[in-house]
Amino acid sequence: MINKLVDKIKKTNAPIVVGLDPMLSYVPEHIQQKAFAEFGETLEGAAEAIWQFNKGIIDSIYELIPAVKPQIAMYEQFGVEGLKAFQKTVDYCHEKDLVVIGDIKRGDIGSTSAAYAAGHLGKVTVGSHQYSAFHEDFVTVNPYFGTDGVGPFIDVCKKENKGLFILVKTSNPSSGEFQDRLIGQKPLYEYVGEKVAEWGEGHMGSEYSYIGAVVGATYPEVGKILRKVMPKTYILVPGYGAQGGKGADLVHYFNEDGLGAIVNSSRGIIAAYKQEQYAKFGAADYADASRQAVLDMIADLNGALQKAK
Amino acid sequence: MINKLVDKIKKTNAPIVVGLDPMLSYVPEHIQQKAFAEFGETLEGAAEAIWQFNKGIIDSIYELIPAVKPQIAMYEQFGVEGLKAFQKTVDYCHEKDLVVIGDIKRGDIGSTSAAYAAGHLGKVTVGSHQYSAFHEDFVTVNPYFGTDGVGPFIDVCKKENKGLFILVKTSNPSSGEFQDRLIGQKPLYEYVGEKVAEWGEGHMGSEYSYIGAVVGATYPEVGKILRKVMPKTYILVPGYGAQGGKGADLVHYFNEDGLGAIVNSSRGIIAAYKQEQYAKFGAADYADASRQAVLDMIADLNGALQKAK
Repeated sequence: MINKLVDKIKKTNAPIVVGLDPMLSYVPEHIQQKAFAEFGETLEGAAEAIWQFNKGIIDSIYELIPAVKPQIAMYEQFGVEGLKAFQKTVDYCHEKDLVVIGDIKRGDIGSTSAAYAAGHLGKVTVGSHQYSAFHEDFVTVNPYFGTDGVGPFIDVCKKENKGLFILVKTSNPSSGEFQDRLIGQKPLYEYVGEKVAEWGEGHMGSEYSYIGAVVGATYPEVGKILRKVMPKTYILVPGYGAQGGKGADLVHYFNEDGLGAIVNSSRGIIAAYKQEQYAKFGAADYADASRQAVLDMIADLNGALQKAK
Repeated sequence: MINKLVDKIKKTNAPIVVGLDPMLSYVPEHIQQKAFAEFGETLEGAAEAIWQFNKGIIDSIYELIPAVKPQIAMYEQFGVEGLKAFQKTVDYCHEKDLVVIGDIKRGDIGSTSAAYAAGHLGKVTVGSHQYSAFHEDFVTVNPYFGTDGVGPFIDVCKKENKGLFILVKTSNPSSGEFQDRLIGQKPLYEYVGEKVAEWGEGHMGSEYSYIGAVVGATYPEVGKILRKVMPKTYILVPGYGAQGGKGADLVHYFNEDGLGAIVNSSRGIIAAYKQEQYAKFGAADYADASRQAVLDMIADLNGALQKAK
């Protein structure tokens, strides 16, 4: 799956991933009204609205990008109905041949991690049958438990040819509270980065490991350090755009081969029509606004990478 | 909600919580067969089997205990159908007036944490209506993101009179890889414990804070330290029984008032009939085996607490 991701990044020339994190407030009024007319102002109605919103965006951008990253929390808040919309979204992105990174940030121990891995990346056994429940291609994982929390995820990845992105340094303002704590001379995130590189050695694709890392765009100096600590690790970079990251800040997250990082934008793409820059598209053509925002993001990143050569 | 939990612990004289973490392999054959006859060997059939299994156990033990802790991963692995069984289980435990601790170990940043909090502890707004999706009373939270990851959960807890248990020191063998790293003189878990105590001060019940901590039974010496670091924090203690913790090891997780800790057992209770000690009950009376295991656990803990006085 990491090979497929790298191939698709090369083909599209777009080292980006679009975060499908729909808040109901992003969904244009006409889509909400249609969903509510059919299902009422219910959890089912909300789920239908975000699914139709997603579908419009996917149809408009799928040829431009290698991957999407649905954030499960935005679906889970609507309960079982929301999770049905999550599943529909994952399935539809597979139909469009997009790599799907489930942003689930799960993490637990032993058989519990194994259950999450089975549900999101692998299969569960029921009697004499096996089923894939949510079947993403990659998921994000929290490292706080250490090796035997992450291990069951890696086992399933090996079996199913799937991958992970493990949180190393997150993009939020208080991420340093624990992640930057100095252990001897090194901050905690560097120890976590070393572990990610070590775990990744055991599950290599042809150029990069199936086991990737999450490093926030908002800490470019940390990105530079972690790039060296984890040379064969693909870095998923959240925090571009709405959270403040710009292309020029992110060149050091990439290797010299122009690969090694994939930059996420969520709100900046899916709610583009709400920004002044793209307001001319209007709510009716929200998906065209998203398409333009994708093109601009690709140009920004490739421009910065070109300039840095 | 912390007041209700403390009251119920006093009333039942049982500082324990039963982990409803059903693996399909725990579910007696006759329950599986009945569910599969109705729904086939499908995800729906698996979900029905674990729900009926849970219901039998809850009916048998609800009067003895203050709280249950369903582990969402065990439901999530069966996808949307599994999550329906999770929701049914939470609802049924509320009917039986049990405090429900959703073991979800979520954690993210800003609006994403807010979405998890809304879905599990609070309400989501759809048009002019509000809905509670999974509505547990407490949830477990991962602290890796720091204050602005945990903050949105605390905000919802304040509004809804709900609570959290934040991971401080987990019960698994490799928990020390990151959690035990020394920062100056202190291990990371102690810094996290200090933060939990600080966060908890802002949301106090009458004796204890709404913001609790998770400290594994398998590290009793750490429990002793963290008890002092977080005097007003309720400690949720996983790792009793199947993972090796015993009552006598756990007295220092409690305060002198005999309160301050609640010990979880999952497999040891719900799959009791599979242990030699309770094999006489047989698969047909699995719920009676669970009841006996609850009584034995209460006796073990209270005996140890009595002895330590």
